Amino acid sequence: MKIFAAQINSTIGDLTGNVRKILDAIHRAKQARADIVLFPELTISGYPPEDLLLDASFIDAVQAQLEIIRPATAGLVAIVGLPRWNPRKKEKPLVNSAAVFKNGELIGYKDKELLPTYDVFDERRYFEPGKEPFLFEYLGRKIAVTICEDLWQHSGTVGYTHYSSDPVVQLQELRPDLLLNLSASPYYFERKDARVSVFAAAAKTLRCPVVLCNEVGGNDQLIFDGHSIYINEKGELIQIAKGFVEDDFLVDLDTNACPCAMPKDGIKDLYNALVLGVRDYFHKQGFSKAILGLSGGVDSALVACIAKEALGSENVMGLALPSRFSSPASYADAAHLAKNLNIELKKVEIDSIFQSYLDLLEPFFGGKPFDITEENMQARIRGMILMAFSNKLDYILLNTSNKSELAMGYSTLYGDLCGGFAVINDVTKLQIYHLCQYINRKGELIPEAILRRAPTAELRPNQTDQDTLPPYEELDPLVEDYIERRLPFEEIARKRGVPLEFVRTLARQMHRAEYKRRQAPIGIRVTEKAFTKGRNVPIVQKWI
Amino acid sequence: MKIFAAQINSTIGDLTGNVRKILDAIHRAKQARADIVLFPELTISGYPPEDLLLDASFIDAVQAQLEIIRPATAGLVAIVGLPRWNPRKKEKPLVNSAAVFKNGELIGYKDKELLPTYDVFDERRYFEPGKEPFLFEYLGRKIAVTICEDLWQHSGTVGYTHYSSDPVVQLQELRPDLLLNLSASPYYFERKDARVSVFAAAAKTLRCPVVLCNEVGGNDQLIFDGHSIYINEKGELIQIAKGFVEDDFLVDLDTNACPCAMPKDGIKDLYNALVLGVRDYFHKQGFSKAILGLSGGVDSALVACIAKEALGSENVMGLALPSRFSSPASYADAAHLAKNLNIELKKVEIDSIFQSYLDLLEPFFGGKPFDITEENMQARIRGMILMAFSNKLDYILLNTSNKSELAMGYSTLYGDLCGGFAVINDVTKLQIYHLCQYINRKGELIPEAILRRAPTAELRPNQTDQDTLPPYEELDPLVEDYIERRLPFEEIARKRGVPLEFVRTLARQMHRAEYKRRQAPIGIRVTEKAFTKGRNVPIVQKWI
Repeated sequence: MKIFAAQINSTIGDLTGNVRKILDAIHRAKQARADIVLFPELTISGYPPEDLLLDASFIDAVQAQLEIIRPATAGLVAIVGLPRWNPRKKEKPLVNSAAVFKNGELIGYKDKELLPTYDVFDERRYFEPGKEPFLFEYLGRKIAVTICEDLWQHSGTVGYTHYSSDPVVQLQELRPDLLLNLSASPYYFERKDARVSVFAAAAKTLRCPVVLCNEVGGNDQLIFDGHSIYINEKGELIQIAKGFVEDDFLVDLDTNACPCAMPKDGIKDLYNALVLGVRDYFHKQGFSKAILGLSGGVDSALVACIAKEALGSENVMGLALPSRFSSPASYADAAHLAKNLNIELKKVEIDSIFQSYLDLLEPFFGGKPFDITEENMQARIRGMILMAFSNKLDYILLNTSNKSELAMGYSTLYGDLCGGFAVINDVTKLQIYHLCQYINRKGELIPEAILRRAPTAELRPNQTDQDTLPPYEELDPLVEDYIERRLPFEEIARKRGVPLEFVRTLARQMHRAEYKRRQAPIGIRVTEKAFTKGRNVPIVQKWI
Repeated sequence: MKIFAAQINSTIGDLTGNVRKILDAIHRAKQARADIVLFPELTISGYPPEDLLLDASFIDAVQAQLEIIRPATAGLVAIVGLPRWNPRKKEKPLVNSAAVFKNGELIGYKDKELLPTYDVFDERRYFEPGKEPFLFEYLGRKIAVTICEDLWQHSGTVGYTHYSSDPVVQLQELRPDLLLNLSASPYYFERKDARVSVFAAAAKTLRCPVVLCNEVGGNDQLIFDGHSIYINEKGELIQIAKGFVEDDFLVDLDTNACPCAMPKDGIKDLYNALVLGVRDYFHKQGFSKAILGLSGGVDSALVACIAKEALGSENVMGLALPSRFSSPASYADAAHLAKNLNIELKKVEIDSIFQSYLDLLEPFFGGKPFDITEENMQARIRGMILMAFSNKLDYILLNTSNKSELAMGYSTLYGDLCGGFAVINDVTKLQIYHLCQYINRKGELIPEAILRRAPTAELRPNQTDQDTLPPYEELDPLVEDYIERRLPFEEIARKRGVPLEFVRTLARQMHRAEYKRRQAPIGIRVTEKAFTKGRNVPIVQKWI
């Protein structure tokens, strides 16, 4: 039996485009003589459709697509994900479902049983859980269909919720010969290994192979990495689809294959995730051109490399915006980088504007010392000029803030926080250096001088980040422990060998920046806990 | 039997402060010879605590407060809301609970059964539903305890969810003599009438009186309006607590009282909600001073009045920021308003800065016509100067954007969208005029000239809003129908007598501004559907 997992990249709400991809994949599956073609979760609507699901005409329009797909399924089985009306008409009006077609007939639906409602997921906002397993017979095999989270409880690795039921256990007595799973399992750093162990646990319990078709693509903050997998009845990983691109993943259950290992590609995957995130944010909206400030620092250098890879050199423009506090070397490095990347670079000196503001405000602020006001002012002039270029030339401004500075509020609202899309806002400073080394692996794209320079905002004389922040070697692990892993203060202090009061103070400082983060552009989630999605913290509160 | 509904204003996460309020209220209840003191939902933590609930030490600290409260309950019954660990240890780790103390003993907990997970609510993210009714005997009466949503299903007026169970029906056979309810029921325009009909339905079914204690206060975007109520066994409204302030609401079940009517105070309530929102946003964080741009327009005039009422004249500063396109009358009106409100007004001319930008960018944009770039530039210079004052003087910048312009994207990111808190971002332009009339009801506070001037951004010569937008008389009802009521396009077109294509075009334009709204400051939710909370729409999508 051959299974064709159509790892496609759906666009949210693009029913026509998504169905075209579905029909094309069914066609290719037939050419490959596949018996079953399996799609990702919510294939027709894209995942996550969020409040589009509250629009009844959207649900009806999704449902109507099934009649377009049905005739194309003559001669095989096709399993397509979609939101549909809850047939039980109780509680939530919808179910998260998979339509199963066999030889041109719709033979039934599997409704997702375990609905994640934690972190970035809010499926109980829309969906009622399915209550029943779904199996069908085909070519002598009993085949069970499941959707994403349905298999996660069994492994014991869902961190936020302990579901009261376990669909894998319920399937045990039904003795399926094959388990299929439609997923929209988002990427985060080094997650794909966890995914293999989850699906292997199900395979071992049911003593049958598992084929998982995962979504690929970027939808707003979420990146779906693909990496669809085939695991045999012993729980061994046999085959892996490509990551971060669409892939026709053909599994032949009847040939013996040796187990393979999931490649250890942490940084490469991270880089690919960021590139995919930018490309899909732009192309799915019909945009092609990006602008960004090139300071000569490492953050903007990395974003420029990612943008070039995602959009092409000809679609990326850098602006150098030196002030009185900028070193000439910074500009030289930015120019060097632009040359290496073959992207356009323009230079706009901001000092005349800065002086105009100082003069204008002198009667009001006269006598008060230079402080954060004047630092912010320079960052905001830069933001303003970048936005002027963006408006005039119709480029989207890429934001270059990193997670470490966002955590600490070491960034200027309406200044360096400007932009339509924040490419690296879930990447800590240390990871940024790792990514730069990865980019330079075959030769220098990012000039060494950029990597060697001490991080600085260049907003006052001889400033470096470490005037204000702890060294990144100290800060970043605390950001990971506190924001991403939610460890208690005591545990962080013990684990990292720092005073408890130091951890508390940093946590308070991180909280005080909440109002800034709330106004920051959305960005690409690449860790277990990003700031812009999946983290709901009140601004006004007295706990932290 | 006397019931003391302690309509208090909790602060999220301020366990010490909230418990002090609880103890004080118990003390006052005893002085009033009350038999029962009833608190709002999640009294100890404040509502909604959001992801603070994921912090185990927070839950433990909340639980520890019960031992501080317990001894104070000698001689009466006290019912206090709190999040606590789910005793069944299944699915979600928490339950949304009410601790019932009787004469110094903790006699049990009621766990909320119906958990709203729609609109602004996400209780299934944290909580598992309670499964059991909770009744206790006291002074010869059988008393049932319920929490907020528990009573809403019964009335059939929960719009988003049809729960499979109805706690009111389950209580029927238990024949309670009195129904108590702890609520955190947020305000929106004219909602309190709906609330009365919901609780009256429960009273009628159970043929027993209902006393509801509702939270009061602003927590980030949400306003809780108080208006606790007592409804008799016939479903008649007998008594109403004050709105928008803390109130000791004493109900005597044993005296006959005539039914009363809920006052029709739509605009007055709206005004009070906005004032409370500003006051709590500031005071709960320990801030007192606000700055805002005073353009001579109606939006900033209204925000100035609200800020003055919330914070006091001495804590509000206006900045007039005229450009080459501003009429002298605008400044005169702003000055007149500032005088009426007795607030400080400073004037900063932005034209020299604007010219500096034009000169600087001439080599890059030369030959291209004046367009939205230059309009945005002026709005951004204003934002920048307001932020400079905010930074230098430590004032919070109030944002003055209204819902009509936010809907249409008729606002400048990093310009008029700057600010820490958006006071009227859920108020349409027409409602703004109504509010101004309300403010002027006893005499002119807002100068007539401001109310008469055609709305304009004054960003190019002789500009008015209606150069770009449909008249507000036409636009605002469409914003309400599409955003707040989620009506289908066809129904809106029919209802409002406009072409279907006009509705579609407006909806698309509203969607295109989604990326701007995502970076706008949070504001006060005063309608059924605000932009900044309870509306989750993907930016990248092709449906709308």
